[in-house]
Amino acid sequence: MATLQAIKYNDGQLEILDQLLLPESCTFVPIWNVEDAWAAIREMKVRGAPAIAIVGCLSLAVELRKLAAPETKEELCRLVQEKLDYLVTSRPTAVNMHLAAEACVKLCTQLTDNTSVNVAEAKDDIVKHLEAMLANDIADNRAIGEHGASDIMKKNATKDKLRIMTHCNTGSLATAGYGTALGVIRSLHTASKLDQVYCTETRPYNQGSRLTAFELVYEKIPATLVCDSMAAAAMKQFKIDAVIVGADRVAANGDTANKIGTYQLAVLAKSHDILFYVAAPFSSIDFQIPNGHSIPIEERPHSEMTHTGSIRTAAAGINCWNPGFDVTPAELITGGIITEKGVFKPDQLAPHQ
Amino acid sequence: MATLQAIKYNDGQLEILDQLLLPESCTFVPIWNVEDAWAAIREMKVRGAPAIAIVGCLSLAVELRKLAAPETKEELCRLVQEKLDYLVTSRPTAVNMHLAAEACVKLCTQLTDNTSVNVAEAKDDIVKHLEAMLANDIADNRAIGEHGASDIMKKNATKDKLRIMTHCNTGSLATAGYGTALGVIRSLHTASKLDQVYCTETRPYNQGSRLTAFELVYEKIPATLVCDSMAAAAMKQFKIDAVIVGADRVAANGDTANKIGTYQLAVLAKSHDILFYVAAPFSSIDFQIPNGHSIPIEERPHSEMTHTGSIRTAAAGINCWNPGFDVTPAELITGGIITEKGVFKPDQLAPHQ
Repeated sequence: MATLQAIKYNDGQLEILDQLLLPESCTFVPIWNVEDAWAAIREMKVRGAPAIAIVGCLSLAVELRKLAAPETKEELCRLVQEKLDYLVTSRPTAVNMHLAAEACVKLCTQLTDNTSVNVAEAKDDIVKHLEAMLANDIADNRAIGEHGASDIMKKNATKDKLRIMTHCNTGSLATAGYGTALGVIRSLHTASKLDQVYCTETRPYNQGSRLTAFELVYEKIPATLVCDSMAAAAMKQFKIDAVIVGADRVAANGDTANKIGTYQLAVLAKSHDILFYVAAPFSSIDFQIPNGHSIPIEERPHSEMTHTGSIRTAAAGINCWNPGFDVTPAELITGGIITEKGVFKPDQLAPHQ
Repeated sequence: MATLQAIKYNDGQLEILDQLLLPESCTFVPIWNVEDAWAAIREMKVRGAPAIAIVGCLSLAVELRKLAAPETKEELCRLVQEKLDYLVTSRPTAVNMHLAAEACVKLCTQLTDNTSVNVAEAKDDIVKHLEAMLANDIADNRAIGEHGASDIMKKNATKDKLRIMTHCNTGSLATAGYGTALGVIRSLHTASKLDQVYCTETRPYNQGSRLTAFELVYEKIPATLVCDSMAAAAMKQFKIDAVIVGADRVAANGDTANKIGTYQLAVLAKSHDILFYVAAPFSSIDFQIPNGHSIPIEERPHSEMTHTGSIRTAAAGINCWNPGFDVTPAELITGGIITEKGVFKPDQLAPHQ
């Protein structure tokens, strides 16, 4: 079966899988313009930093394709910039939409300055640039998948099939498609080297049980859901070969901020002598940050822990601690950091910058 | 504030806190006879092996107090045994009700053989025996609390107040009252030595967020709820001083079967250089079992992981692994095993048998 496509784009037609309806229902909704994209991002119909940027940019491509070219390139660029500024406000902390907007504005300036390009050609170039993001992100993810899978197979050369544990959602539902950590797992499965993937529930927002499990069932990848409390017991019982997780931000020394629970899995992997990998596009590495101590950790609403929908699951009045992320020290990333440029030991990132 | 009493017994009147209604509502229901107790146990209004046995036995005491003494001791004992046999069927795997029934039948035989006791006196003796279970269990738990608190305080003599992590529910809602691991925490709080208790959610059945959090809020013990995935991050961030958990069964060598997730906490405690304690009545130590390898691990229904009430929280079709317990190897129990007889290193249990 083909990889789950959560973002479908074809000739100016954009549809996204409404993640709010998962796992109950798998429904695609059309995105006709930037307002639709803004609302879908705000309501979390689409989530995951790369996916947000791509849906935003594609919604602008949809609009530009339908638009008659303005009279001047200046007018075109003013319009593009206005729409990008608006899209950035949909989730101000998601850095990818911000970076994508910057890149597009830079292109606008270049096109305006280039006297050999007319306004219709400029519009086409901008559309092509925006549309290329989807394919580029998928290509990067596929490269991550190939590099990761071959590294893991090389390090487990004597084993016929491998058992992999993963955390949170890093698949088609968080990226343009294919995924990072889940992309590596897809590549292992395609190579007929995957025995079983163990995905954690990923409390409190259940990205593992709702989203990763959905992708794995959808693609018929052999998978077992475990609660976060069962990770160590599963590592021991099932003789897990590797743990692979994604990254929200990697510091220059390899310290990695990722979904809460990642640090714990890294400690448990080390004590069970299991290789621990981080899989992320090279753009997730922030060389401005020397180490993980400077990465701020967002605290999220207590209601995520005390309620499931309208059902109260925790005693009224209890204080909660609900950090969204934690930082895994580089020395626990024993397998390496898997990027589209290759797999690197945490202390070997800088030379490949 | 007084300790939460989930089992209230006074002069032949028995009431239990209906745990099915927690955390939404704190409602006591009367138990008039063994049929009421059987149903309450079956429906899990009361849970926890010691609590089940005590509610069963007290329901029999309630009936016997109201009963006119039969004509003969043989008739009395036949009636008692019938009711005990019936109570054991309410939760056949809960060993405590079974052991309590055996002890009571043994007493019946002794009373029947003792020609100096008449039938009314025999009935009184049986009632007293059954009623004593509640006070005895609470006394044992208080002794566990005192031994554990003084050991932890001794090992942290330089610290003014302590931060303790616990798992699952081992309090008034699982025992006759006071609790085992939570009893130690209560004793630390009473001694003004508790800074904060961090209780884990304890997925998938949420005994931590529903029950332990309820007890802690009820008694105004300073407490913070964390997801199971946050244990390591909390250990690091809050500099936890000790982890204390209960036990379902302890093998002769100290290997301990307890709620799934316990093993993981022990590994994490060790890697963070935090003392790890098991608190349990000495009767939980099964000297017939040499080590943890021979303890069978019950697998529980997948629906516990895929649904919260009627809300689906996991993708349809995903395979689940839902072990109820795991085994923590003795060498990870670095603090010791806290019993009513004292705190022992795992390999020092046998001499105190």
